[in-house]
Amino acid sequence: MSKLVRKNIASMEGYSWGEQPKNNTNLIKLNTNENPYPPSPLVIQALQTLNAEELRTYPDPLADELRAEVAKLNQITDKNIVITNGGDEGLRLSLTTFVDPGENVCFADPSYSLYPVLAAIQDASIKPIAYSEGWEIPEAFSKEINSHNAKMSYLVNPHAPSGNFYSLDTLDKIAQSAPGILLIDEAYADFIDPSLNYRSADLLKKHDNVLILRTFSKGYSLADLRLGYLMGSEALISPITSKTRDSYNIGSIQQKLGVAAISDQEYSRKIWNQIRENRTYLRNRLTALGLNSHPSQSNFILAEIDSQKVDAHSLYLSLKEEQIFVRYFQNELLKNKLRITVGTEEQNESVIKAIERITQ
Amino acid sequence: MSKLVRKNIASMEGYSWGEQPKNNTNLIKLNTNENPYPPSPLVIQALQTLNAEELRTYPDPLADELRAEVAKLNQITDKNIVITNGGDEGLRLSLTTFVDPGENVCFADPSYSLYPVLAAIQDASIKPIAYSEGWEIPEAFSKEINSHNAKMSYLVNPHAPSGNFYSLDTLDKIAQSAPGILLIDEAYADFIDPSLNYRSADLLKKHDNVLILRTFSKGYSLADLRLGYLMGSEALISPITSKTRDSYNIGSIQQKLGVAAISDQEYSRKIWNQIRENRTYLRNRLTALGLNSHPSQSNFILAEIDSQKVDAHSLYLSLKEEQIFVRYFQNELLKNKLRITVGTEEQNESVIKAIERITQ
Repeated sequence: MSKLVRKNIASMEGYSWGEQPKNNTNLIKLNTNENPYPPSPLVIQALQTLNAEELRTYPDPLADELRAEVAKLNQITDKNIVITNGGDEGLRLSLTTFVDPGENVCFADPSYSLYPVLAAIQDASIKPIAYSEGWEIPEAFSKEINSHNAKMSYLVNPHAPSGNFYSLDTLDKIAQSAPGILLIDEAYADFIDPSLNYRSADLLKKHDNVLILRTFSKGYSLADLRLGYLMGSEALISPITSKTRDSYNIGSIQQKLGVAAISDQEYSRKIWNQIRENRTYLRNRLTALGLNSHPSQSNFILAEIDSQKVDAHSLYLSLKEEQIFVRYFQNELLKNKLRITVGTEEQNESVIKAIERITQ
Repeated sequence: MSKLVRKNIASMEGYSWGEQPKNNTNLIKLNTNENPYPPSPLVIQALQTLNAEELRTYPDPLADELRAEVAKLNQITDKNIVITNGGDEGLRLSLTTFVDPGENVCFADPSYSLYPVLAAIQDASIKPIAYSEGWEIPEAFSKEINSHNAKMSYLVNPHAPSGNFYSLDTLDKIAQSAPGILLIDEAYADFIDPSLNYRSADLLKKHDNVLILRTFSKGYSLADLRLGYLMGSEALISPITSKTRDSYNIGSIQQKLGVAAISDQEYSRKIWNQIRENRTYLRNRLTALGLNSHPSQSNFILAEIDSQKVDAHSLYLSLKEEQIFVRYFQNELLKNKLRITVGTEEQNESVIKAIERITQ
């Protein structure tokens, strides 16, 4: 590596993405929490009506039409929204805009392994707050973010990789006492049971230090499109919109397909319901095989492997040999577990049968 | 703005993008250097064969197929290339990866007005080096980047907004003496006359401190697609690829259309030639109207307005009333000039006639 590279960059590790095997035909890919169902028919239609000649000119820098749809869905105004190139850009911009090098960034650990990577790029000081088994937000979370005077704190809800769900009341209290910004990463929120009445946008009316991150990758089956958004008070969103994001961060293809996806809530609700049903089925069948898991409000199950039969890493490798990809993490709390994305009914049946074959 | 915003962000000005009027039908848009011709027929074909179901899964994080095409075109290896979400992401990443807050960033001024904006976001120290009339690289450039110990220096070739061209020999000498990285922004290099034999990738074999930026926005008529790339020594490119860029910065639609565009060099050469012919015609006609300009190797003309007849800002406004958009800059060296993108033959005829009407 060149001596011209910044010291913090030279010394950090990059993000390890989940395997993206190229031959997609025969394999069962349950390792990166993709939605097993196709995008809305309206997205397919929108794709068919794209006009290549329009690609000649720059896109709408503010993605106004898409912001209007997002605003309507979340019952907020377009000034509370910035559209991002995947949720990851939103996470990066939260640091670029609010966290000076050397300031403290907290997150309940383990969670999305990109947080410490992005914090290292920003040369911020990384303060993980350890989860224990049970996956409740660590009791000391509020105390620790205050003792660290954290400029930015990240929580994922539902939590990844456990799928555990936190109530609005819990988040409200943390936001209230947070010394800086609380970013609630809702990458998987579309899969929360509607009976839980989770409407986190309400927090924005009460707190001017809350950012909420959403993505089209999971709920809308558009991981490839790279589309997400941040919501927050205008005072937090405006410097991102007008200063720190790349001016043309989102092309019009992304904008148009995003509008098509979000406007078809009927289709979305249908596939989210189906995924919840598949989730319950998958969890019950895994439990019956001796693989326990925390109840998940997400589109994955964190299954604990009975190490008397097989260790998690071996099971991961054996499944991979059968062209079934799940996620293994090298982490103290996770090393005896595998994260399995909820697939279609057929995919779930295949992974269950394979685990049964390997472990019995 | 929230008190939680970083001081450098709160105090800076954001980038001002060129007007992107939404009603595109009757207007003549010569203000943001878009290519007046449509993308290659292969791009149109690729767009028609996109499969929405594939959007469900994450794209290839490394854009291998596109990197291979870029490598072939530039006769370098894929390890010398990182694909970016528009050229702007490449500029941002050059700072994220190599420039610590407080370090000096130099550029010949005026040029692309995004440089100081991105440097301010990175909290770097901005050291513009003034151009004078004639638009040669300031004589003191090498001396000044050394006296500032500039970690990053930007030059645009051909220069924007003048269109002036710098030889490989000139750039070679600057790279040789640069104390940090020299980034050569070649956003408009596709429009350089082939007889000038400009092959800047050769510089990469000689200098491990050179980055070259290219974009699909101008030459390939894909401003909307947000696609560009950085070329450099593996020692400079590797930390960007593996650490500082967002892992999935480019979706597969961008990757596929990019491959289609770059593989159709025959079509590209044809439209670049046409634009060069139109450029000569436009410049000559403007000169005949008393609007002088520096010879341009780009897809725009920086026309000097004879202030005895009309001042540049008034002419800009009068053209806008006729639905003809050109670019006016509030800058000491530029305030008596307008930057006019080279359009189709018909568009050029319209802008010439309009200027004639307004100024005679």
